Amino acid sequence: MMKNNSLKEIGKQLEGTDSIVIFPHVLMDGDAMGSAVALCRVLRRRGKEAWILLEDKIPDYLMFLDKGFCTYDKKKVSDPDICLCIDCGDTERFRKRADVFQKGKSRICIDHHATSEPFVEYNHINTEASATGEIIYDLIIEMDWPIEKETAEAIFAAITTDTGNFQYSNTTRRSHEIAADLYDYSPDLAKISVEIYQNEELSKFRLESKIIDTAEIFAEGKGIIAFVTLKMLEEAGARMEETEGMVAKLRSVKGVQIAMLIKENDIGEMKVAMRAKEKGNVAKIAGKYDGGGHIKAAGCTINDSMENVRELMIKEVSKQFGY
Amino acid sequence: MMKNNSLKEIGKQLEGTDSIVIFPHVLMDGDAMGSAVALCRVLRRRGKEAWILLEDKIPDYLMFLDKGFCTYDKKKVSDPDICLCIDCGDTERFRKRADVFQKGKSRICIDHHATSEPFVEYNHINTEASATGEIIYDLIIEMDWPIEKETAEAIFAAITTDTGNFQYSNTTRRSHEIAADLYDYSPDLAKISVEIYQNEELSKFRLESKIIDTAEIFAEGKGIIAFVTLKMLEEAGARMEETEGMVAKLRSVKGVQIAMLIKENDIGEMKVAMRAKEKGNVAKIAGKYDGGGHIKAAGCTINDSMENVRELMIKEVSKQFGY
Repeated sequence: MMKNNSLKEIGKQLEGTDSIVIFPHVLMDGDAMGSAVALCRVLRRRGKEAWILLEDKIPDYLMFLDKGFCTYDKKKVSDPDICLCIDCGDTERFRKRADVFQKGKSRICIDHHATSEPFVEYNHINTEASATGEIIYDLIIEMDWPIEKETAEAIFAAITTDTGNFQYSNTTRRSHEIAADLYDYSPDLAKISVEIYQNEELSKFRLESKIIDTAEIFAEGKGIIAFVTLKMLEEAGARMEETEGMVAKLRSVKGVQIAMLIKENDIGEMKVAMRAKEKGNVAKIAGKYDGGGHIKAAGCTINDSMENVRELMIKEVSKQFGY
Repeated sequence: MMKNNSLKEIGKQLEGTDSIVIFPHVLMDGDAMGSAVALCRVLRRRGKEAWILLEDKIPDYLMFLDKGFCTYDKKKVSDPDICLCIDCGDTERFRKRADVFQKGKSRICIDHHATSEPFVEYNHINTEASATGEIIYDLIIEMDWPIEKETAEAIFAAITTDTGNFQYSNTTRRSHEIAADLYDYSPDLAKISVEIYQNEELSKFRLESKIIDTAEIFAEGKGIIAFVTLKMLEEAGARMEETEGMVAKLRSVKGVQIAMLIKENDIGEMKVAMRAKEKGNVAKIAGKYDGGGHIKAAGCTINDSMENVRELMIKEVSKQFGY
């Protein structure tokens, strides 16, 4: 039963039903939201009762995608024919909605994460896809469903965010082919980019400034470490979520191979976000301190003072480069 | 004589000759360098004596593209058959090399700027192209010249930088189609992105911090203004060139329609860089103070104190939004 299905099989299931509830993961990103919105829009055009069920906030920069598709009301979507989780491969990533998901007469999973495996009645997991948005596009084309301007824009939002604007190594020929195809629907792709990337809070930049002020280069330029405290957040009028992208920015410094950002959390522990460039393996360091992640992106939480964690991490990174 | 030629006509000129000197514009960007390198590489593969003649420094982030193609030595390239200016449409943008350019037995211009017009024997100006790199790709395909991995990488560098990673409104279906085609040559496009975007100086980030600290929001959030003085440069250990991208960053703040960055220059004048988002016309403001530019990107130089220029610009922007 737990196998990968073709897009045609998935599409037929959706065609043959009346009501579908879509479950993007918590802490949604552009791919989860863009994919969910594109699919929901198409299904409604096909006359289905379709909703995206959420448990946490839509980030500001993705709000423009929701045109009445999202709901937090479990009653509104009770007793669905099909429950479909999108851009995630287990119920852990939508825990507070898992009860509704399990009530679906049939369940579908559409995802592109390498860690996902078939876990419900119908699954389409394609780890070659740079974004789940690519899979949704392929599904729509496969089923010959109608694509509106806004559907094309949602798919573009999904792909452009998950590929780091077509710069990450997960970007493929197919990512660009789909982007080219989307022009058939006259989307305002430059407007999408303004919505997504030109909607920053000044507080975020102020926080960035404070973090850069703490940055220290070591190991002959191969390592960089910076930190952010609750006090710094308060001074900048910013939230911890606004540090997103910051450790990647530190990594972008010339010559740096490993970047680390230590973040003080609410209960005084230190969360360490780590990124590696071409050399360096941060999964190894994170793993040693009960953390996890990939070779190039990992993290861990350590219950010690900022100063001690800083020294510890400098030692770990230095050791990796033979210092 | 001054007309636009087909790519075939341009290609035949290049095929029928032995030596070609390529002239990218001063203050070169990814498109000028990427296009020049791609063309030079292909011409050498066709057995031609081809060089890129420069008069100013290659920016650090583009150095990886030069594999012995660039020279500053006019003697090395004297008496060329064809002189070809690329990504620019007049000799003003390579003034110190104009003497060599004029000596070409025949001259070619390949460009995509809207302000360019045919001005030499052979011209191909295509303002529909998002980047000159697109034109070079089309020329190579038209002529069936060989494309190596590195040629594909240079073309990608040209297109990705000039389209702001496929986000600016100049991006077209063709930009993505070409990017997709480039995968035929197995380029390491993610590596290119690391070279271009992950080679920042920490001093640049330190300068950014200082500039953000000066940022002021006005006109109910529609305007933002910041400044940079020579003293700030010194403190950050940075150069004025490192403010590139800074005014665009200020514009990316939510709600902002016009962003301004005032830069103190060596002789104590104030250079004002201006950017507009969807609303607002900065060409109008710049024009009033003997500056120039486009509706969304313009600038001017004012000989007054930082404080006076700041007040003046706040007034101009406020007025434009009816405050």
